[in-house]
Amino acid sequence: MKSNEIQEKINNKTKPLGALGKLEKMAMQIALIQNTDSPAISKPTIVVFAADHGIAKEGVSAYPQEVTAQMVLNFLSGGAAINVFSRQHGIELLIVDAGVASDLPPHDQLWVQKIERATKNMLKEPAMSIYTVHENITLGQNLVKNIASKGCNCIGFGEMGIGNTSSASLLMHFMAKIPLELCVGMGTASQSEHQSKKLSVLEKVAQKYAPQTPFEALSVVGGHEIAQMCGAMIEAYNCGMVVLIDGFIATTAYLVAASIEPKIESNAIFCHQSDENGHKYLLEYLKKEPLLNLNMRLGEGTGCAVALPIIKCAVAFLNEMASFDSAGVSKEN
Amino acid sequence: MKSNEIQEKINNKTKPLGALGKLEKMAMQIALIQNTDSPAISKPTIVVFAADHGIAKEGVSAYPQEVTAQMVLNFLSGGAAINVFSRQHGIELLIVDAGVASDLPPHDQLWVQKIERATKNMLKEPAMSIYTVHENITLGQNLVKNIASKGCNCIGFGEMGIGNTSSASLLMHFMAKIPLELCVGMGTASQSEHQSKKLSVLEKVAQKYAPQTPFEALSVVGGHEIAQMCGAMIEAYNCGMVVLIDGFIATTAYLVAASIEPKIESNAIFCHQSDENGHKYLLEYLKKEPLLNLNMRLGEGTGCAVALPIIKCAVAFLNEMASFDSAGVSKEN
Repeated sequence: MKSNEIQEKINNKTKPLGALGKLEKMAMQIALIQNTDSPAISKPTIVVFAADHGIAKEGVSAYPQEVTAQMVLNFLSGGAAINVFSRQHGIELLIVDAGVASDLPPHDQLWVQKIERATKNMLKEPAMSIYTVHENITLGQNLVKNIASKGCNCIGFGEMGIGNTSSASLLMHFMAKIPLELCVGMGTASQSEHQSKKLSVLEKVAQKYAPQTPFEALSVVGGHEIAQMCGAMIEAYNCGMVVLIDGFIATTAYLVAASIEPKIESNAIFCHQSDENGHKYLLEYLKKEPLLNLNMRLGEGTGCAVALPIIKCAVAFLNEMASFDSAGVSKEN
Repeated sequence: MKSNEIQEKINNKTKPLGALGKLEKMAMQIALIQNTDSPAISKPTIVVFAADHGIAKEGVSAYPQEVTAQMVLNFLSGGAAINVFSRQHGIELLIVDAGVASDLPPHDQLWVQKIERATKNMLKEPAMSIYTVHENITLGQNLVKNIASKGCNCIGFGEMGIGNTSSASLLMHFMAKIPLELCVGMGTASQSEHQSKKLSVLEKVAQKYAPQTPFEALSVVGGHEIAQMCGAMIEAYNCGMVVLIDGFIATTAYLVAASIEPKIESNAIFCHQSDENGHKYLLEYLKKEPLLNLNMRLGEGTGCAVALPIIKCAVAFLNEMASFDSAGVSKEN
């Protein structure tokens, strides 16, 4: 399907030229991904990758490390924000234990694929080995292959991990060469003292390493959930899925994934600009305008879940709106 | 219900303080409107007011006048953007003939309450009499009373009327004292010559009148659909409804309505910032931040329809998310 044919279909809908704004651009993008002018969103799914971070020991987060596991249990019992929004919008939700410090009871919605319980403390040593990076990427890829085989063609990724904005900030700093102070935000904290303490810890980490490849960056300052998410994003592109990019941490995973497989860009929709400080600069660096800006900063894939109905609107107008001819409406003079 | 009690409920949800951003503010607003910390959205409805404009004769629009009636028929056969989005989001849709130039065949979804077929040409004479303004406001109010009696507590308003951005621009100019050139945009046009022609016509109209009250403003430069929408917004506030404000034209109706009944503000949610030039300045004047900015400029209530799922997310998290206590999640250190 050529883009000019899709554009002609869009332009013949009963509306002024371009009057559906970003919905028209998304309709075009999804039509090109699916190579049809009648695209469809099937079995939309959000995968939340959870893992712990050794750096949490340095007091970079406002919450204690056990909150990662507690929140996974909250996901599994249906009480977190991502549960509420996924239920509301008919989204399948899958939780992945990619490296939670404690072990979790089995559950239908929980997929356990952890190589290690938490990363190492990156202030002292690399977060994980290069070998573990590659293993995590493969685990993320295999998971998405499995989901694709069940008929899902639109996937979003969320995360949960006390300390993971620290990993994300450092990945952004190393990969995009953006000054660290612009990459570091409040995380989950509500008090600004937390941010200055976090920045001073992360400055020390930043001075310690000089990664030369995306894999090295994941090794020294990554997280298991971020590495698996990278693999998942790459595979989602390989499977021809629409790839929903959530907030700050998911966008740093995208940054790494796109440096490995730049073609992901054509399938990615940036759902929401997080209130987390670094996300604005990261989106500017990527030259991406987010679909929504609701001042959320929660992670879990909530930005994807909230945005899905708007993405469905883009597909629906392309399929369902009448054309000027079919409706007998006069065109612009 | 006091706002501090609602805030406490919001703060105890399993998320960092404030991490749901605008959703938290909307949850608070809707809880206060409904005077409960367990609010609900019932039978959400969009009413599209359609009418014609005498000023269309001066070539201010890119489309011929008959498009108003043609688009009403398109609404009634389900082929317009507002139909697609309303179907997708479970929104009741009602079309009002508030002053279409031609008569339309009867239809379940069509409510005919027109006093005149189109306004007078405001370049030559006032668009309608003061008496007609008041009649239109009453018609809008009665319609909403009727809808409220059926259990709807969340209502949005759209419009269709070739030439009605001209009315809206002049209402904004007169009521908000904003220079006319900032109030005039492309309307439905895709060519910028249209805009300069429109501006020169509207400058002549602006010089002709000096309305002193909102009713006089509606009389000299208003539209039947805009006047009915004003009445509808006022009554929606009286009925304790959540009032969804769409784009440029609906916001000028709000501007007029709020100058008659300022308390509307507490019930109004500004759904979408239109790409129509004046809307940005009008929202700044009103000190309102829109929920969405999707670069749409279509009217019909499409901004309300697209935003509804996000408004429902705000209500849903307040009702359905677990608290720190109930989920056994540790709080911020």
